[in-house]
Amino acid sequence: MARAFKKFLPMFDRVLVERFAPELKTKSGLMIPEKAQGKVLEATVVAVGEGARKDGKVIPVSVTVGDKVLLPEYGGTKVQLEDQEYFLFRDTDILGKFES
Amino acid sequence: MARAFKKFLPMFDRVLVERFAPELKTKSGLMIPEKAQGKVLEATVVAVGEGARKDGKVIPVSVTVGDKVLLPEYGGTKVQLEDQEYFLFRDTDILGKFES
Amino acid sequence: MARAFKKFLPMFDRVLVERFAPELKTKSGLMIPEKAQGKVLEATVVAVGEGARKDGKVIPVSVTVGDKVLLPEYGGTKVQLEDQEYFLFRDTDILGKFES
Amino acid sequence: MARAFKKFLPMFDRVLVERFAPELKTKSGLMIPEKAQGKVLEATVVAVGEGARKDGKVIPVSVTVGDKVLLPEYGGTKVQLEDQEYFLFRDTDILGKFES
Amino acid sequence: MARAFKKFLPMFDRVLVERFAPELKTKSGLMIPEKAQGKVLEATVVAVGEGARKDGKVIPVSVTVGDKVLLPEYGGTKVQLEDQEYFLFRDTDILGKFES
Amino acid sequence: MARAFKKFLPMFDRVLVERFAPELKTKSGLMIPEKAQGKVLEATVVAVGEGARKDGKVIPVSVTVGDKVLLPEYGGTKVQLEDQEYFLFRDTDILGKFES
Amino acid sequence: MARAFKKFLPMFDRVLVERFAPELKTKSGLMIPEKAQGKVLEATVVAVGEGARKDGKVIPVSVTVGDKVLLPEYGGTKVQLEDQEYFLFRDTDILGKFES
Repeated sequence: MARAFKKFLPMFDRVLVERFAPELKTKSGLMIPEKAQGKVLEATVVAVGEGARKDGKVIPVSVTVGDKVLLPEYGGTKVQLEDQEYFLFRDTDILGKFES
Repeated sequence: MARAFKKFLPMFDRVLVERFAPELKTKSGLMIPEKAQGKVLEATVVAVGEGARKDGKVIPVSVTVGDKVLLPEYGGTKVQLEDQEYFLFRDTDILGKFES
Repeated sequence: MARAFKKFLPMFDRVLVERFAPELKTKSGLMIPEKAQGKVLEATVVAVGEGARKDGKVIPVSVTVGDKVLLPEYGGTKVQLEDQEYFLFRDTDILGKFES
Repeated sequence: MARAFKKFLPMFDRVLVERFAPELKTKSGLMIPEKAQGKVLEATVVAVGEGARKDGKVIPVSVTVGDKVLLPEYGGTKVQLEDQEYFLFRDTDILGKFES
Repeated sequence: MARAFKKFLPMFDRVLVERFAPELKTKSGLMIPEKAQGKVLEATVVAVGEGARKDGKVIPVSVTVGDKVLLPEYGGTKVQLEDQEYFLFRDTDILGKFES
Repeated sequence: MARAFKKFLPMFDRVLVERFAPELKTKSGLMIPEKAQGKVLEATVVAVGEGARKDGKVIPVSVTVGDKVLLPEYGGTKVQLEDQEYFLFRDTDILGKFES
Repeated sequence: MARAFKKFLPMFDRVLVERFAPELKTKSGLMIPEKAQGKVLEATVVAVGEGARKDGKVIPVSVTVGDKVLLPEYGGTKVQLEDQEYFLFRDTDILGKFES
C-alpha cells in the first residue's frame, strides 16, 4: 500500500482512502456469502491533498495518512491505482475518525 | 455507552446522538405494539465534532455531550458502532435542547 | 403553558410558537364545524433561540416571548411537548407582529 | 384603513400593501363584469418592516407608508386583517413607485 | 412619452424601456404583415432606478434616460402605464448600448 | 466590420464576437455541403464591455478587440447588427485564446 | 504536441490536457478490441490558464505543463486543435497528480 500514496497526490481537499476488507465470517465462524456482505464504511486514509483554497489561503485537511475514518454511504469517487481500488472523498464529507 | 464516544470522533459540526428508547407501555400500563411506536425524536448527545470551519476559524458546536435534544423528523445519518445504533446530525439541524 | 418554555430551548434562530385556538362559533353564535375552521395563522411566541450565528457573531431573534405573530401558511415544524402541539419557525419566516 | 397598520407590524423587509379597487366602469361609463376586471397591480403601502438585516446592520426599506407602488403580477402573500385583504411583499420585489 | 417617466420611478436596478416601433415596410417599400414582424429588441430607456444596494452602498445603474439599448430576447416585465406599453429590465440584463 | 463595433457597446463582462467563416472546401478541394459544415467555434472579438462590477469595482474583461478565441459549443446570444450575425458571450465563458 | 500549447492559451482556471493513449494489448500480449478499451482517465497537462480571478486577485492553477493527472470520469470539454483531440478541465476538477 505504501507505494500507492507515494505515487498519487490528491488535489485540494481530496482524501484518498482504502476501505477495510469486508467481514468474511460471522463471529461464530460461518462464512458470509458475498451478497450478504454489507458495504464497508470504515477506511484507512492513504493520501491527502494540501487542502482547499479559500480567498488565497490554504485550509489543511482534517485527517492524516493512517487515520481510520467513517465514510458516508453515498458519494466518493472510485480510483483504480495499480490494480487496487481506492476512493476519493472531500475532507468535509468524511463523517468521523476512530481513535486508536 | 461511554465506550462509544471515546472511540468515535465526529468531524466538523457533526453531532453523534443516541435516540431515547421508544415507549413500550401506555401510561395505563398497556403494551404498545412495535408498529404503533412513533419515531423517537428525543436523543442524548454522545459525541460532538470540533466545529465547522469558516474562513479559517473554527465555530464550536452548540451542544455538549449529555445534552438532551430534539431531532428533526427527517435527515441525519445512521451509524452502527459496536452493534449499537447512533445518528449523526449537523449541529445546526438540531431543533432544540431540553433543560434538565 | 409556562412549563413548556421553561423546559425547551429552541436552537439558533428558531422560534417556538403556539397557535391561537380556532374560532368555534361565528360572530352570530353559530357553531363552526371542524372542517370549515381555517388554518390558524396567529400564534403566541413561547420560546426563542439565542439567534443565528453569522461569522462568529450571534444575531438575536426579532421576536420575544409573549409576542403575537402572524405565521406563513406553509412551513414550520410541528413539535409535541408534553402532549401539547407547538410549532417551530425560523425567525425570518415570521411575517409580522400584532401590536397590543 | 388607519387602524390596520397601527395594529400589524411587518417583519424585516416586508411591506404590507392594499391593492387599489378594481375599475368597475369603462371610461364611457359602462359596467365592467367582474370576470373582465384585470388583476390590480397598483397598491398603497400601509405598513413597512424595519428592514432586512445584513451582517448585523439593518437596511431600511425603500418605500414609506402612503406610497403608491406597482406590484409584480406574481408573488406576495395574502393577509386577512380584520376582514380586509392585504398583501405582503418583500421590499425588493416591488417594481416601482408612482410619483404624486 | 415625457409624462410617463415623470410619473413612474423604477425601484433599485430596474430600468423602464420603450421598445422601438416595429418595421412596417421592407426597404423596397412593401408592407410587412404583423405576423411577420419580428420581436423588437431595440429600445429606449425612459426611466431608471437609483441602483441596487449591496452591503449598504448603492450601485448606480449603467444606462441613462434616452440611451438606445439592446434587450435580451426573453425576460423583462411588461408594464402598462397610461395605456402605453413599457418593459422593466434589470440593469444587468441589458445586453448593450448603441452609440449615437 | 469596423462599423459594427463602433456602434454597439456590450455591457458589463459581455464580449461581442464574429465567428470565422465555415470551411467550404476540404483540403483536397472538394466542396463541403452546408449540412456537413460543423458549428464554427473559432471567433474574432469585435467589441468588449467595460467589465463586470464586483463590490463597486470594475473587473476588466480578459480579451481585447481582435483576439482570436475559442467559444464553448453551447451558450451565447445571437445578435443581428446591420444584417450581420454576431454573438455575445460572457468573458468567463470563453474557453481560450489563439496566439498569433 | 509542443506546437499545440504554443498556439492555444486556456482562459482563467482552465487546463488543457491530452489523454494517454489507450492500452491496446493485455499484459500477456493479446490485442484488446476497441470496445473493451476503457475510458482513459490519465492525462498530460499541455497548457494552463493564468488562474481564476477572485476579488480582483488571480489564483494560479495548481498544475503545470507536463504534469501527469487523474481526470474525473465525467465533465470536461473536448477541444479539436489541428486535428488532435484535447480536453479542457477546470483546475479544481482534476482529481490528483501522479508523482514521477
